[in-house]
Amino acid sequence: MMLIPVIICGGAGSRLWPVSREAHPKPFMSLPDGQNLLQKTLLRALALDGVTEVMTVTNRELFFKTEDEYRALKPQAQCLSYVLEPFGRNTAAAVLSAALQLDQAHGPEALMLVLPADHLIKHTDAFAEAVANAARLAAAGWLVTFGIQPQYPETGFGYIESDSDALDGGLKVKRFVEKPSQEKAEEYLAAGNYFWNSGMFCFRVGTLLDEMKAHAPEVHDAVAATLKQSRLTEATAHRCLSLEGELFKNVPDISIDYALMERSAKVATVPCNLGWSDIGSWNALSELTPEDEAGNRFEGEVLVHGANNNYVHSPERLAALVGVQNLIVVDTPDALLIAHKEHTQDVKQIVAQLKKSGHSAHLLHRTVHRPWGTYTTLEEGHRFKIKRIVVKPGASLSLQMHHHRSEHWIVVTGMAKVVNGESTMMLNSNESTFIPAGHRHRLENPGVIDLVLIEVQSGDYLGEDDIVRFQDNYGRAPC
Amino acid sequence: MMLIPVIICGGAGSRLWPVSREAHPKPFMSLPDGQNLLQKTLLRALALDGVTEVMTVTNRELFFKTEDEYRALKPQAQCLSYVLEPFGRNTAAAVLSAALQLDQAHGPEALMLVLPADHLIKHTDAFAEAVANAARLAAAGWLVTFGIQPQYPETGFGYIESDSDALDGGLKVKRFVEKPSQEKAEEYLAAGNYFWNSGMFCFRVGTLLDEMKAHAPEVHDAVAATLKQSRLTEATAHRCLSLEGELFKNVPDISIDYALMERSAKVATVPCNLGWSDIGSWNALSELTPEDEAGNRFEGEVLVHGANNNYVHSPERLAALVGVQNLIVVDTPDALLIAHKEHTQDVKQIVAQLKKSGHSAHLLHRTVHRPWGTYTTLEEGHRFKIKRIVVKPGASLSLQMHHHRSEHWIVVTGMAKVVNGESTMMLNSNESTFIPAGHRHRLENPGVIDLVLIEVQSGDYLGEDDIVRFQDNYGRAPC
Repeated sequence: MMLIPVIICGGAGSRLWPVSREAHPKPFMSLPDGQNLLQKTLLRALALDGVTEVMTVTNRELFFKTEDEYRALKPQAQCLSYVLEPFGRNTAAAVLSAALQLDQAHGPEALMLVLPADHLIKHTDAFAEAVANAARLAAAGWLVTFGIQPQYPETGFGYIESDSDALDGGLKVKRFVEKPSQEKAEEYLAAGNYFWNSGMFCFRVGTLLDEMKAHAPEVHDAVAATLKQSRLTEATAHRCLSLEGELFKNVPDISIDYALMERSAKVATVPCNLGWSDIGSWNALSELTPEDEAGNRFEGEVLVHGANNNYVHSPERLAALVGVQNLIVVDTPDALLIAHKEHTQDVKQIVAQLKKSGHSAHLLHRTVHRPWGTYTTLEEGHRFKIKRIVVKPGASLSLQMHHHRSEHWIVVTGMAKVVNGESTMMLNSNESTFIPAGHRHRLENPGVIDLVLIEVQSGDYLGEDDIVRFQDNYGRAPC
Repeated sequence: MMLIPVIICGGAGSRLWPVSREAHPKPFMSLPDGQNLLQKTLLRALALDGVTEVMTVTNRELFFKTEDEYRALKPQAQCLSYVLEPFGRNTAAAVLSAALQLDQAHGPEALMLVLPADHLIKHTDAFAEAVANAARLAAAGWLVTFGIQPQYPETGFGYIESDSDALDGGLKVKRFVEKPSQEKAEEYLAAGNYFWNSGMFCFRVGTLLDEMKAHAPEVHDAVAATLKQSRLTEATAHRCLSLEGELFKNVPDISIDYALMERSAKVATVPCNLGWSDIGSWNALSELTPEDEAGNRFEGEVLVHGANNNYVHSPERLAALVGVQNLIVVDTPDALLIAHKEHTQDVKQIVAQLKKSGHSAHLLHRTVHRPWGTYTTLEEGHRFKIKRIVVKPGASLSLQMHHHRSEHWIVVTGMAKVVNGESTMMLNSNESTFIPAGHRHRLENPGVIDLVLIEVQSGDYLGEDDIVRFQDNYGRAPC
């Protein structure tokens, strides 16, 4: 019985702004132990018995980042495959794309285990046991959900109500219920046959496809049409299906819950107690950091006087709290959040304000990830901009040219291979070069350690769009 | 009748950390209108009738900064004189140094008006009137205080109790009282003959010297001995007395209030209502910024959701407040303060913690002022440091050499004259040079606009103390 975990890595995680942003969403946030939720999800998947492939469905823009995060864990390269979306289209499209691709590669008998990349699961043994039960039920033709035994009357989750019919390792599902009122949530907790809907699923690929055809044919057909026009990219060694954008636009924006689970009669749930959390707010995240005797939880250098029950995430700057209680303080190089613990759900309102006003702080961090590495804008002002550029070993930027700016490059560590107009040179640390406006140039790291360099740009116009690309290793547009 | 305002510019202003720091204290903090308290004090002094000289007593380290702030106001250069202290030694020493210097320059009949540089006065007409009354009383031999009519029962100030004897423009002082309890403060407010002790004074120079000799001879003699060994520096066009450090150490560390005012029988007060504030906390400072309909006062880009009655000072980064009340948030490039409005006095406890632990954040900002301009450390890491350097028109750094680091200089704006080993060159914007370790070098701004350059240092050791100075325009030590 082949079981393929399918990691769904998407969503903006706007309640975890300013660390989570559209271009660096929740699955990529580093947790206090140094790993992020995406990495933890992969490790959880790889630890399951008999797993030989893990598929990841994510946004095309997040592909290189995802690969970097996975690579840091050194998994066996051949076990990773990808479906890349041109834009987010909700979970029905993501799950169905994966299912169609798995059907083609492994046939309808394969089992798929859908794992959102932004959840935390503490009890790995219980998880393995729940997956074994789910796989058995899925193989028998059930659409299987994982029903988390509720610990308290949470009003922020949907619930699954189970039938009394016991199945082998699970229960039949009677109905799904929306986020309840406080009163209803308390009823559910007391009743004992209500579970939190975790967003994890297990399906036999053939069953899923048949049920989708029956209950959501418009989703099925639109995704199937997209796949026909999509191509396996060759950017990496992994099997990597990049979904065609124009056809994907026709796919209805609907969740797998609405499109299928609430409509099908073949739904089961595996009740379980996994130490599960969807890390849905800064409150949940703060609990991963131990508290001191005053109830404060700090990441970074924090001084206090008469302050208690606060959480501060300030990895780069000194923070001081005086006489304050119950605050969440999150510091990043370009944005600062201060929220009351009882209102952390409202952080998404700030993100909505930023989006509405066209502010980039909902989207980008000061450090921007690129396929070849990262750049960080250190300072910009009239006619100049300073960046710190890190190029990964073996990586190179595109062969490019700028009309309006010159660039000074100073190598701080590592070795740079530089094409500058007609000449090619090697620059060692502490050496520099100057690229005049209008010169074709290329930066490459031929070494085995990171290349770090400082770029000082000067010119009349310093926008990122003043770039003409002549050749690019990552398939990016020529201009 | 010659009246010379004496501005006392000192103190750390630790309750206004992290904007106020030892090397950039309260008088230099920029207020919402763009001026700082020091500049406002100078303008207030210059606006008085018949003022032809303003003397400033400040720390030697703050001299160039003070000059810069004054210069920005374009006062008549010949009217400024300075007494420079090697270290702070409380107000008796500062006032007496000024008095002895004024006695020598203008004789005992001159009147001195002592003005702390870290106060705000709203009503300039009332101030001028109070000064006129004070000058008349001082000329008649009184040691004159300015008694601020209390607006509420403040427990943070000392009070002056007046006698019933009316003088010409003032009242005789019965006694000084220490910071009172709440109950006492309410009594004082009701009584009507108690005033806040503002720390401003007016003295006839000869009277002050006689009274100091009589009541605090040890202070008088130690300061007089120091002045005998002190020299007029020639660093600028201004008369500038730099106090000798070894002898100044012998001066008792005592306030003018304790040393003289509480002991003399010749003390008068001019009751006045000046719209005076000592800007003694972030609460007081916040009131200079208008509030919005939710009671929030913001300097910088701030987003809110359900937050009211907060003050945010965040000139460089986006800040977001969610569901919080009554907070003071002060953001600087290297340190962040979050305090409850009722506990802003305790900010000084944070500064005390920083001092105790040897942290530089109580002392320095990321941008450091030097006689020739400023430097800002943009980033530092293993084997590299990046600075943004601004050199004032006509200024130059010392001729220097570093043993352990090389420096890349890239001119962003302005013109640089660079001595690099044996050669001298001019660098225009967008040009660069490289100073190898061990090379003598000098950087000068020969132009009429600021020279801005980026310096990228690299080497095994990048401490500020790896510097050998061969020649310096500002009298700084050769190494």
